[in-house]
Parts: sequence; structure tokens; C-alpha cells
Amino acid sequence: MSMRVESDSMGTINVPANKYYGAQTARSLANFDIGGERMPTEIVTAFGILKKAAALANHKLGLLDEATRDLIVAAADEVISGKLDEHFPLVVWQTGSGTQSNMNVNEVISNRGIELSGGVMGSKKPVHPNDHVNMSQSSNDTYPTAMHIAAVEALENYLFPRIEVLRATLAAKSEEFMDVVKIGRTHLQDATPLTLGQEMSGWVAQIDLAVKAIKVTLPQLKELALGGTAVGTGLNAHPDYAVTVAAEIAALTGQDFVTAPNKYAVMAGHDAFVGTSGALKQLAAALMKIANDVRWLASGPRSGLGELTIPENEPGSSIMPGKVNPTQSEAMTMVAVQVMGNDAAIGFAASQGNFELNVFKPVIAYNFLQSVRLLADSARSFNDNCAIGIAPDRKRINEHLNNSLMLVTALNRKIGYDNAAKIAKTAHKNGTTLREEAIALGLLSGEEFDAEVKPESMVGPLKR
Amino acid sequence: MSMRVESDSMGTINVPANKYYGAQTARSLANFDIGGERMPTEIVTAFGILKKAAALANHKLGLLDEATRDLIVAAADEVISGKLDEHFPLVVWQTGSGTQSNMNVNEVISNRGIELSGGVMGSKKPVHPNDHVNMSQSSNDTYPTAMHIAAVEALENYLFPRIEVLRATLAAKSEEFMDVVKIGRTHLQDATPLTLGQEMSGWVAQIDLAVKAIKVTLPQLKELALGGTAVGTGLNAHPDYAVTVAAEIAALTGQDFVTAPNKYAVMAGHDAFVGTSGALKQLAAALMKIANDVRWLASGPRSGLGELTIPENEPGSSIMPGKVNPTQSEAMTMVAVQVMGNDAAIGFAASQGNFELNVFKPVIAYNFLQSVRLLADSARSFNDNCAIGIAPDRKRINEHLNNSLMLVTALNRKIGYDNAAKIAKTAHKNGTTLREEAIALGLLSGEEFDAEVKPESMVGPLKR
Amino acid sequence: MSMRVESDSMGTINVPANKYYGAQTARSLANFDIGGERMPTEIVTAFGILKKAAALANHKLGLLDEATRDLIVAAADEVISGKLDEHFPLVVWQTGSGTQSNMNVNEVISNRGIELSGGVMGSKKPVHPNDHVNMSQSSNDTYPTAMHIAAVEALENYLFPRIEVLRATLAAKSEEFMDVVKIGRTHLQDATPLTLGQEMSGWVAQIDLAVKAIKVTLPQLKELALGGTAVGTGLNAHPDYAVTVAAEIAALTGQDFVTAPNKYAVMAGHDAFVGTSGALKQLAAALMKIANDVRWLASGPRSGLGELTIPENEPGSSIMPGKVNPTQSEAMTMVAVQVMGNDAAIGFAASQGNFELNVFKPVIAYNFLQSVRLLADSARSFNDNCAIGIAPDRKRINEHLNNSLMLVTALNRKIGYDNAAKIAKTAHKNGTTLREEAIALGLLSGEEFDAEVKPESMVGPLKR
Amino acid sequence: MSMRVESDSMGTINVPANKYYGAQTARSLANFDIGGERMPTEIVTAFGILKKAAALANHKLGLLDEATRDLIVAAADEVISGKLDEHFPLVVWQTGSGTQSNMNVNEVISNRGIELSGGVMGSKKPVHPNDHVNMSQSSNDTYPTAMHIAAVEALENYLFPRIEVLRATLAAKSEEFMDVVKIGRTHLQDATPLTLGQEMSGWVAQIDLAVKAIKVTLPQLKELALGGTAVGTGLNAHPDYAVTVAAEIAALTGQDFVTAPNKYAVMAGHDAFVGTSGALKQLAAALMKIANDVRWLASGPRSGLGELTIPENEPGSSIMPGKVNPTQSEAMTMVAVQVMGNDAAIGFAASQGNFELNVFKPVIAYNFLQSVRLLADSARSFNDNCAIGIAPDRKRINEHLNNSLMLVTALNRKIGYDNAAKIAKTAHKNGTTLREEAIALGLLSGEEFDAEVKPESMVGPLKR
Repeated sequence: MSMRVESDSMGTINVPANKYYGAQTARSLANFDIGGERMPTEIVTAFGILKKAAALANHKLGLLDEATRDLIVAAADEVISGKLDEHFPLVVWQTGSGTQSNMNVNEVISNRGIELSGGVMGSKKPVHPNDHVNMSQSSNDTYPTAMHIAAVEALENYLFPRIEVLRATLAAKSEEFMDVVKIGRTHLQDATPLTLGQEMSGWVAQIDLAVKAIKVTLPQLKELALGGTAVGTGLNAHPDYAVTVAAEIAALTGQDFVTAPNKYAVMAGHDAFVGTSGALKQLAAALMKIANDVRWLASGPRSGLGELTIPENEPGSSIMPGKVNPTQSEAMTMVAVQVMGNDAAIGFAASQGNFELNVFKPVIAYNFLQSVRLLADSARSFNDNCAIGIAPDRKRINEHLNNSLMLVTALNRKIGYDNAAKIAKTAHKNGTTLREEAIALGLLSGEEFDAEVKPESMVGPLKR
Repeated sequence: MSMRVESDSMGTINVPANKYYGAQTARSLANFDIGGERMPTEIVTAFGILKKAAALANHKLGLLDEATRDLIVAAADEVISGKLDEHFPLVVWQTGSGTQSNMNVNEVISNRGIELSGGVMGSKKPVHPNDHVNMSQSSNDTYPTAMHIAAVEALENYLFPRIEVLRATLAAKSEEFMDVVKIGRTHLQDATPLTLGQEMSGWVAQIDLAVKAIKVTLPQLKELALGGTAVGTGLNAHPDYAVTVAAEIAALTGQDFVTAPNKYAVMAGHDAFVGTSGALKQLAAALMKIANDVRWLASGPRSGLGELTIPENEPGSSIMPGKVNPTQSEAMTMVAVQVMGNDAAIGFAASQGNFELNVFKPVIAYNFLQSVRLLADSARSFNDNCAIGIAPDRKRINEHLNNSLMLVTALNRKIGYDNAAKIAKTAHKNGTTLREEAIALGLLSGEEFDAEVKPESMVGPLKR
Repeated sequence: MSMRVESDSMGTINVPANKYYGAQTARSLANFDIGGERMPTEIVTAFGILKKAAALANHKLGLLDEATRDLIVAAADEVISGKLDEHFPLVVWQTGSGTQSNMNVNEVISNRGIELSGGVMGSKKPVHPNDHVNMSQSSNDTYPTAMHIAAVEALENYLFPRIEVLRATLAAKSEEFMDVVKIGRTHLQDATPLTLGQEMSGWVAQIDLAVKAIKVTLPQLKELALGGTAVGTGLNAHPDYAVTVAAEIAALTGQDFVTAPNKYAVMAGHDAFVGTSGALKQLAAALMKIANDVRWLASGPRSGLGELTIPENEPGSSIMPGKVNPTQSEAMTMVAVQVMGNDAAIGFAASQGNFELNVFKPVIAYNFLQSVRLLADSARSFNDNCAIGIAPDRKRINEHLNNSLMLVTALNRKIGYDNAAKIAKTAHKNGTTLREEAIALGLLSGEEFDAEVKPESMVGPLKR
Repeated sequence: MSMRVESDSMGTINVPANKYYGAQTARSLANFDIGGERMPTEIVTAFGILKKAAALANHKLGLLDEATRDLIVAAADEVISGKLDEHFPLVVWQTGSGTQSNMNVNEVISNRGIELSGGVMGSKKPVHPNDHVNMSQSSNDTYPTAMHIAAVEALENYLFPRIEVLRATLAAKSEEFMDVVKIGRTHLQDATPLTLGQEMSGWVAQIDLAVKAIKVTLPQLKELALGGTAVGTGLNAHPDYAVTVAAEIAALTGQDFVTAPNKYAVMAGHDAFVGTSGALKQLAAALMKIANDVRWLASGPRSGLGELTIPENEPGSSIMPGKVNPTQSEAMTMVAVQVMGNDAAIGFAASQGNFELNVFKPVIAYNFLQSVRLLADSARSFNDNCAIGIAPDRKRINEHLNNSLMLVTALNRKIGYDNAAKIAKTAHKNGTTLREEAIALGLLSGEEFDAEVKPESMVGPLKR
């Protein structure tokens, strides 16, 4: 492999000639050969936005000349586009401030800027990684800022659209099946009826609650640390820098980011991620319940509940037709479990700040962004490969409904509680139907029974 | 012990004559001899409010006569007041719908109402536990409603006031010490200075973020399941009941409770508790960071950081003066840990609903309310026994500040980066001060050094 | 309330005259008004054992006279017996070393010893709380020792016997139903058959694995910190003390406790509780699976799986016979969730030691002992109120078995895979039985079908 | 991209011509576009071992001819070697039984075997993915077997050696510094002295306890599900198969794997992973404590504790010499946090089995193996880049020791408790040394003081 010499305050070090990164990235690669989980690309993209915004702000405040600004902006745009992803090799398990990833970005933008200007990579001229790319910044305020940008973008542009599609599918199904009366179940036991549409409306409402729960946490994620520099005081930054750079980030992203009113809080704590991760966990809990309901209702084909059918996407069994394994539910519930584990890690990590810095930043970013990605992807996958094809097995639904002893409650008004109970008890003992025993006990005729016991009139409040 | 006979649909059972509860409570006591954690009193109180509101609503809707309403209201008021607490002996580890605690309340209100009317306890006349006290209700909608009422009341009336007191103390301290310049620390390593007031302002801001994070989740807790009855359809309830009873609860509590737009979601899922518990965890993470900062800054007296002194509330050591153990920090951080454990239980439990019911309700209520109580109590305890007495050890703070090699950054503009670095390196090597080495190296006079190196001018952005 | 004056190194304080505790307990009550969770009684009992053992050891080593020893032993025996429980009012949320609970024990034994000798309570004569009861000890080594004693005793004497009873019940049921052939289910979908006894043998084996997993962790819990005194060096203790006192504790408890080979590790870390709590979580996971299987198999009565019946312990519904809510499963699964939450708290807490001490001891003890207690109690409750009454619904089991399309695999050898699949597909499409379609398709006669398709020969490996 | 047609029971599908995988892998890729976390390579390797062992066992039992066996073995050896890794593209978030990854292995071995024999890929001749590679197997018993093999191999061959190196380094340091007397700290407060070697011996002992805690769980991981086939009964398998194939796996790995005595338990539950993950969490807790101690003791350089120096691996600050950020501690503590989150996910997932199968297998494998990998890698990284360079700053250690007021306890015997306390209080008030005040108060001469106050004699039990 062809190498190039790069240097930092500790001296020189060889780096691959075909990579833009420099000395500090190379040192981190050597010092942190741990796992293999790369710094999330969402963080790299967010850093691209951040560095571009900083260059624009520094220029506006008279600190950076136009030529250097333009080189930084051009290189940062390439970072944002993803075409430089291979130049960001660092893992999550590095310094807890994310300094090495901040330097990785500084080095890549510096060298790419140098290359664009026709300079010599590693020369730090005309774009210096620290003096220019990192101007008015510290790892301590850039990394948390990148975390916030990445989180908001991932939620707004990735998670919400995908959840919305699933929500819309389920809402349409709920509408469609609003008149399919079926047995209700509480404690897993037969209960009074409701419609399939009503049941599914509960799923939609759970998603709505969860999405709203996530959205109300967005304002705290939109407060940015940038401008706090090393310890939150803003030392060495222009007094107008924090506000200016937040405005640039807002303009670049279309999200209403603002500078955090208190920088100490957002550099030394990352509590905002705890609250938002809690809301993601709310969504995970809702999706787990929905995915479980789907697979239980589709259980069978003969000896399960069998009230729903779901798409068959892959061979469930080579010999047994009808064995449709609910694999999309399985993927989704595994994701829900993962989100809960991630949330435990985030809560722990966020509590461990000391003085002016929390040094568990990368592990927070890693878990948070994985949760967002998995929830979004599994929602889309579940929608496309399962939810859109959910259909009721009306025959089975009616069997369950009509067999139900719970319908006896409809007879209370006509023949009194005691007689109704007698019918139900006898039917339970004999394994017969309510109708059969009502007639056998001489309490109602078949016609009378049919006139009274109408499940479809049991799916709402009393009509007055 | 004198006994009384009570009955339910399974037959008769003896209960203590001096207790208002009836057969189903007695059965639960026999069947669930598990742990000893009682159903939280907040739930009992909330049930009192709920039963009162239901009686008022049922009367308004023409379903309950005035005399029975008044007996229920009178007995419910006693439940709310706490004077009947001993009549609620059930544990958390019972049926997952909380049915037995709902029946416990029905039985107590029934028998106390009977007693008030001069009737015979256990006769179910004139106040029947099911027909009157539980009218238009099911355990499946009452228990979650009680959970929501209890949660909102605990947050609004218990947690927020106590947190606010701690927040105010810390804010006042932050003001008071806004000019005490001290060394900053990142990665636990000496960094550029800030003021103690700035540092403490970060604590205040973390609390503010967390409290806001909790508050934005309140609307979902204010949506009530009541009116859904057995499976969410509202079977057997008056069509106006749900709205009416929510309004009664709002009136009784002064909180803007409303009926949940979708009852299926709030009976089969308790995801709202996941989101709000996540916000409580955010607060726990913030308090853990604050409590840790306090104990580290107060560490010593000789061989720690020693920058703060805290009140001495109990003997730290019988022989060593100055050994003030940071016990309030210890209690608070243990509470933070507990809240995180509770949050894990809540997330898991909330995900386990099936069809029309989640049967992990009591364990959710238990953990959530314990988190609220512990956060509130430890905030108050930390405030009263620690925060109000926090004081800077100015001598130690100045020593740390003046010894710091980090101040050398102030010389960059005057003598250039390389010379400044030389001073710092020499001082580090020799264990001397920057001032001594600046003079020894002939780079600045003492007067020049003092004119340039002013920590108090390093605690904010550049002045322009 | 009649009061008495007690004193410590901070001065005098009033305590209730009818309580044995002294000044430091009273201060803790005032300073830590948090929650209400008392220090677990298992810890108090363990402290009684510890103090008795220390008195015996100190006497053996010539440090404590016989009279004082006897007074301490007499008072400690009362602590162990539980009759002094009301004298231990402190909460969990106190100093993280548990110092205040150690002093609570010292004070109670001192004053009770004084009382037994006819002395004046609070005089510290002839039994001094520090000089005599706490001789050769520090909170830093006593509290972790009490944790270990309490943990081992709770596991050995409380958890294991209760789990063993449940295990025996399930093993007997497994034997009893070893020939009840039923449908198997994977992915919730119908699969090849097994017997109910086989299925239940899996539950037994899961319990066995979990109990073994807990037992292999016992050795680390049996290593005691006592003798480490303040920081682990054993300062001020007799060189033979650590070994001697461990032997006394072993003799008193009948458990093979030993002195920890390294005291620093067991005072500054409580990692052993993490490992053992992980094993408790293994048991919780197993019990959750079992309890879930039971309630799903008992679901119905008409529209669920309905293959098992379980005891009806309380009214499931006032009108619907057969609605037996699986409330014991619900309590057990709620306990499993709680154990998982507790485990999260324990892991976090145990990781937070610094230097010579971990100050999260009480929160670890609280969560660990709650887990043990809840697992044990719910196992007993589940056994007595559910497991002993589990019975197969053979009619339903046979229906499911005979309806199953999965049995077609038995025909492969006779008529070939393709023909077998054709039978199954047709039956699935038409909602008929395999037998019906086998005949209709002219592939086998009814007699041939019956000769080949024998579910009872499908519940084991191929016979050769 | 050049494509090839593959087929399964659902029909044909295109796959890349340069990949060995077949139809079911291709379907999974299309149906599960979730996250990007690949099935861990440890699982793929374990599957290679498993498939090889199965071919050997099937041949021994007369079910598989020699030629087919050899082709499978040859292809499986390539899987084991890692050279086919690119042919295993599936993600974790697929079917919960891991069926698709089992089929991925079957397809790759089939096609590679076919290729080796000169056949046509996709023809399933002469090596059929189901009939030959998967002979006597089901996903339901292979995937859990692969999990167990992967777990044991990762622990034995990856984790333990890396931890052992760190343990050895710390043990050597502990030896080396056994005479460096330093101040002890409890509650973060100055306490009685111990030696640095003693302090570090606690770290070693914590690691030893944790490693032992992991090792005692190995037997349950060494019990293999293979032979249970679809539901645990062993249907379609040779009666000697389970024992035979376990012996083959033991021979191939050198680990004493055995067939699980009960297959139902190990297919429907994965509780063993909960217990072992709990033990990994014990290790994580220990490493977190150690890493925290290191960074706190190395804090400074001027205004921290500063008792240790650690290697400087990367620029801590471009201007401030001596700012050595404890980045290895940071990586290790982030790993510890991650392991705790992973453990939460594992416990949850393992509890969610139903009937004959737990369908959360991949998420358990993913989290477990990540925990092992991260613990091992961070231990190695921490060892190589930090632990080996830990050195005491003896000057600072002595300053802290000699300044300590805690040494006054050594004077108790000479001048009495009250006089000793007076010295300490005066020194604390005046900010002076004990020696100064002892002389000033006329209680001892300097020589007498020096003769009595010898910290080095305070680091162990009383000498008799």
C-alpha cells in the first residue's frame, strides 16, 4: 500500500496515500482496534454540515477568508454527499469525546480542500485542519452538535416517513375492517366482541401516541452546543459565533436548530438523548404489541387463532402448506428488544458526565442512531412485506364469535342474569352453543335467541 | 380475630370484621402471598377520585339515584383522604389487570357506604360493589385510569414542587458564585477556566431540560381509558359516559384530564408510561451528574479536589475532622440507579400487551410511582441537607487555578504559540509555575506575565 | 412520645424512649426522608449473625471479655430472631456504604445489651456500640459481609426450596402426561407433534438449568469482606480475625463461608451480585416462558388454544363460566419483569465503585433481595394455586392434533413427497382433513391412512 | 451484475452469479432490508463446524455416502476458514429462528460442493442444500447449536486470552508497587493508607472473580440442541445422531460439547445466554471500576489526583503538555456500558419463547457476541495502550500521604484519642500538617511524631 507522511503535535506517521485522513485518524486506528462498529455515517454527514456551517459563519464574522471558506465548503459538501465515506474508518470505541472523529473530519476536509486547490496533502496548506476547518470549535462542542444534527435529521427524514407509511396502512385496514365483528380477548381469554377495525384502530392510536411522544422531545435536540468551545464558556470564539453558526445549520438542514441557551449542560450531559430514547422505546413497545397481535391472530393454520392471514414471503415449510411463519413480526419484535437494550445503554452513558464533559458521547450516538434506523427499517419492512397483505379469515372469525359464551350477556335484559348464566354454564359443560342450550332449557326459541344475540350490536356503548 | 362472612360469585369467605374489604380482596390475599409490596397508595387515592367521579357521572346520566351517589361519594372521599388505607392490603403481584385492587376499592366503598347508611356490611345493600360502585366500569378501564390519575397527580403535586426547590437553590448558588473563577475539567483533566457559577448554571440547565422533558409528556397521561369498559368498545356504558366522567375527574383534580380518543390503545398498551418514564430517566441522569460533581468537587479534605465544602450532617469519622462523607450525593445517585432499573421494567412490561389488554399494569404503576417518589424525595433531601450549604473553598480553587498550565493559552497572542508551549512544557517538567518559567526563560517579566494571564478574562467568548 | 437523649461525636439528639436505636440512627431518619423502602430485614438478620460472630471471634482472640461477649450475643440473637425488627427504621436511600444501618445495629445491640445487664440506655456502658459491638469492624467491611450472608441465606433457605417444589410439581405432571400426544408449535404455527409430557419436561429442564446457574455462583457470594476494616488492609484488626470470624459465621449459618482472599475487591466492587443477579434473571426468563406457555395453552375457553385447564381461584367473570383468568401466570410474569429491572439497577450500581469503596451497597442489596423474594414467592404461589391443578383438555388436544396438516409428513415414505404435499395442499385449501383428501384423491384408503398416520410414532427419533 | 437462477419451494429467483448462496438467501435479502448488522461471523464459522460435524455423523450412521460427505466437509472447511464470508450477506433482523441463515449456509455449502465436484450451481446435484447439507437437522436445532458453539469458542479462544493478558499486566504492576504506600479513599474522602500494589491487587481480584464467574457458566453453553430437529423430539433423526454429532463437534473444536439432555429447553429457551451474559456484565462492571480508578488517579496534571501517570498515545491538547486524556479508560467504560445494554436485550429476548421455539435467536447471538468481542478487544487495547505504562507519581503520592489527617489514628495509643483528635482538628482548621500541630501543641516532639506516625505500618492488620 502506498503511504504518505502526515504529522500532528506528536510527530509524523504514515497514512495510506489514497486516503484523505491524517495523523490523528491514523493514531486512533492503531490505538483503538476494538470491535468494528464504525462511527455512524449519520454522524459523519452531520459533521459535514457542521463544518460547512462553521466556515460560513467564520467568514461572515470576518475570521476566515473567502477562498478558504470555499475550499472547506466544497470538501464538506462531498462529506455530506457520502462520497468520502471510506475516509472515515474510525470505530465507536475511541476517546469518549469523539475528538478523533472530529479530527478525522478536519483532516479529510483539509486534505480534500488542499487537493481541490492543487496543494500537497499533509502540508496543511492552504486549508489547515485545526486553524481553518476546526476554527472557533472544539471537539467538546462539535461532537455533541453533530449528535444533535444527526439525531434530528434521522428522526425527521428517516424515521417519521417510514412510520407514517405503516401507520397509513394500518389505518386503512382499520377502516376497511370496521364492520368485521370478532371476539375480543382479555387475559388471553374470550371476552365481549369488538370489530377487527376497532382492534386495529388501537394499533394506529398506539403509533400516533408514540410518534407524538418522540416529536415533543425534538426541541431539546434542536439546541446546539456549538460555540461552547472547550469547556462551554466560548473561549476563543467570536461573541456572535454561536448564534450565527446555529442559524447556518438551520438554513442548511431546514430544521429550526438554535444555539443552546446553556452550553455547559449540553456538553457535560446528554440527557436529551435519554428522554428521546425513552420516546423511541415507547414506539418500540407499541410496535412489539402490534407485531405480537399480528402473529398470534395469524397463528395456525389449524390449531392456532387463525383470524388473520398474512403474506407468505418465503417458504415456511417445504411440505406443509399454510405454514406461514410470521417472520416480519419476528424481525420487528427483535428490533423492539434491541431498542430497549440500546435505551439502557444510553441512560447509563448519559448519567456519567463529570464537570465540563461527558465522555460517553460515541456510545450514546451509536445506540441512539441504531435505534432510529432499526425502528424505521423494520416499520418499512413490516409494512411492505406484511401489513399491506393482512386480511381477515372471516370464516374463522365468525366461528370464534358464534361459539363464544360471552355473547350470553346480551340475554340479561330479556331473561335475567340467572337464566342467562344457566345457559352459559350448561353450554360450557356440554361443549355446546348458547343457542342450543337456550332452546333445550326452554328459555328462548331459536328465533328469539337470534333476535337478542347480535354481536354486531355489542361493539359500542349502549344506544339510547 | 373477629370475622365476618362475605360472598362473591365463587361463594362465601371469612374476612376480618374490622375491615371494609370483601370476598374478592380476601381471595386475593390468600392467592397472592408474594413479596409484600403493597399496591401504591397513590393508586388507591386515584381510585377514590375515580369512583367518586363515576358516581357523579352516573347520577348525571340518570343511572344512579341520589342517595346511592351520596353514599359512594362520602365513602370515596374517605378513601381519598387516606383514612381507609389499612383496608387496602393487596400486593402488586396479583392479577395483571389490577382487577383485585379495583374490587378492593369497590368492596371498601360499598361496605363503608353501607355502614354510613346503617346497613349490614357484606349485604351489598344499599351500595352494591359491582352494580353501584363499579357501575359503567370494568377493571380493564378503571385500573389504567387510576394509573393515569396517580401519575399526573404525583408528577404535578409531588415531583415538580420538590425539584423546583432544588433548582432554585442551585440557581441562587450559581448567581452567587458567578465570579468565582476556577479551573475547568474535561476528560477529568485540567482545562481552561470557567466560573463556579457557570459550572453550576449547567446543573440548573440540565434540570430545566429534564423537567421540560417530563412536562411535554403530560398530555398523553391525561388521556383516560374510563368508558372503554371491558374491551374498549364501551359496551354497557352510556354513550355520554366517557366524556362526562373525564370531566368529573378533571374537576375533582384540577388537572385537564380528557377521555382518550381511542380506548383500545390505552387499555392494551401502556406505552405512555414508557415515554414518561424515559423522561424521568432523563432527570435521573441529570441528577446523577450533579450529585457526582458535588461529591467529586467536595472530595478531600486534603487529597481530593476540595473545591467545594458541603454540610456535615452526621459523623463521617470519629477521629478525622474534615471527613465529610457526601451521603446526600450517595442517596441521590442510588435513586438515579433505581430509576434506571425501574425504567427497564416499565419498558418491558408495557410491550407485553395482547389483543384488548395489557396485564402488566400493577408492575408498571409500582415502578413508575416509585421512580417519581424517589426522585422527588431525594431532590428535597439533597436540597435541604446538602445543596443549601454548598460553598466554595476559594483558597483551594485559586491554588488549582493558578497552578494550571492551561492558562498558558493566554500568552499565545503576546509571545507566540511556540514560546508559550515552551513555557508550559518546562513548567510541567520542573513542577513549577508558568510565571516562574516565563521569567526564567526570559520571555516575560513578572509584571508582563500578570498583565497577560488573567483567568477571569478567559471565561467567555472573545471580547471585541 | 417519650424521648431519651443519645449522643455521638456530633453531639446529643433525642430518640424515642421505647426504641433501642441511638443517635446515628436518629440522624439518618432526619437526614434521609426518602421513599419508604426499609433496609431489607434479611440484611438486619445477617447483621445480627455478623455481630454475634464478631463478638465470638473477638473473645477468642482475647480482645473482648466474656461478659460483654455474652451481652452482645444475647442481643444479637434477638436481632436474628426478628423480635427487634421495629428498631431498624432506616431506609435504603441513605449513605451508600450502609454505615447508618451498621450503626443502627451497633446501637440496638448496645442498648439491648445494656438493658439486659441492667444499665442505662444511651450510657454506652457496659456495651459500647463502637468499641464493643463494632470491634475490629468498619461499616466498609460489615455491610458487604451482611450483603453476602443475606444473599446466601435467601438463596439457600428461601429460593431453592420454593423453586424445588414447583420443579417437582412440573416434573410429576410431565411424567403423568408423557403419553398425551399433542401438536407442537414453532413460530406460533402448527408443527410436528410431541407429547404434553415432553413439552413440560422442557419447562423442568429450563428450571434445572437456571437453578444450577444460580448455584455455581454461590462460591463468590460465600467470600466475606469482614476483616478488611476501613479500606481492606485490615488495619486495627487482629491478624487472625478475618479467618476466625468467617469460621464463626460459617458455624452459625451452616454455610461454608470463607474470608475473601482479597478484601479490596469485595469492598470496592460488588460484581459478585451482578453475576448472581444475572443467574436470577436466567431463572426469571425461564419462569416467564413457562408462565406464558401455561396461559396460552389455557387460553379460551372457546376461542383460544384451550389445551390445558388451570384452577379457578377467583371469579374471572361474573357471568361467563369458563373464563378462568390465568392470574398466577400474570403475577409470575410481572415478577420476571421486575427481576429484569432489578438486574439492570444492580449492574449499574456495581460498576460505580471508586478506589477503596463502592457506595451503592444498599441499592444493590435491596434489588437483589427483592428479586430473590419475588422469585421464591411467585414460584410457591404459582405452584400452589396453578401448577398443581394443570390438566390437559384431551378432547381439545386431540382435535388440534387430528386436524393438523403437519401429520402429512408421515406419508412421505408410503406415497412420496409430492403426493403427500398434494394431500396437504388440498386439505388446506378446502378446509378438510388429510384423511378426507387422501381418500378423495384416491391415494390411500381410510384404513391405509390410519395405519400410516400415527402421531404417537412421530414424537421421537426414527426407530431402527 | 451477472445473475444465476436459483429455486426453492416458492419458485425461482435470480441471484448474483458470483455468489454461492441460493434462493432462500436471496429472498431474505429482499424481505429484510433492515439495519445493516450482519449475522455475526462467529455464527457463520460455527455453522461451518456444525455442518461438517453433521456430515461426518450422518456418514457414520450410514445416512450419507462418502463422496457427498467429502464435498460437504471440503466446503464447510472453507466456511470455517472465513474465505467465503462474502457469501453470507444476511442481517440479524430476519426470521427469529435464524432459518434464513441456516439456509444460507446450506446453500453456500451445496453450491460450493457442487462447484468442487464440477456440477452446475443451483442444480442441487450432487449436494442438495436440504437433503444433504441439512440432513437430520432443522433450523430450530441448528441455529441454537451454532449459537452455543460460537459462544464457547468466542469465550475460550478470544475473550479469556485477552483478559488474561490484562490480568497479568495488572498483577505484575501490583507486585511491583506493593511497597508504594499511598492514601486510601472511601466515599471519595481521604482514608487510612494502603499500598498502590494492594489497591491494584483488588483490580486483579475483581477480574479473577469475573472470569471465574464466566467459566462456571460454560457447561450450560456446552449442551447442544442438535438432534432435536423441528420441535425437540428428534423426529426424522437417527436415534444415535444427537450423541454422535455432539461428539464430532467436540472433536472438531477441542471443547467438551455434549448433547443437551433435554432438547425442548434449549430450543424454546435461551436462558443459558442470560446467565452467561450476566457473568459478562460482572466483568464489565469490574472493568468499569478499574478503568475509572485509573483515570481518576491519573487526573490532573496539576489540579486532579495525579497519583498515576499513563501513556500518552495521541495529542491531548496541542498546547498543554501533560494533558493526557485517559482515552483507553474512555473506550473501556463505553464498552462496559454497551455490555450492560446488550445484557438487557438478551434477558428480554430469552424470556420470549413460546411452546417449542424461541424466535429471538439472532438478536441474542448478536448482542452476546458483540459483548464478548468488545470486552476482549477493549481489554487488549487497554492493556497494550495503557496498563503496561501505568506508573506511580511517587512525589504526588507522598504529598497526599503525608498531608493526610488520617494518619493521626497512629497516635491514639501514644497520646490518647482526645489529644490525637485535637491535633487533627487544629491541623484541619489551620491547613497545616499533623506534625506541625503536634509540636505546636506540645504533645510530641518531631522525633516522637516521626517514630509513631509511619504510614507503612498502617497498611495491614495489627502486628502481634
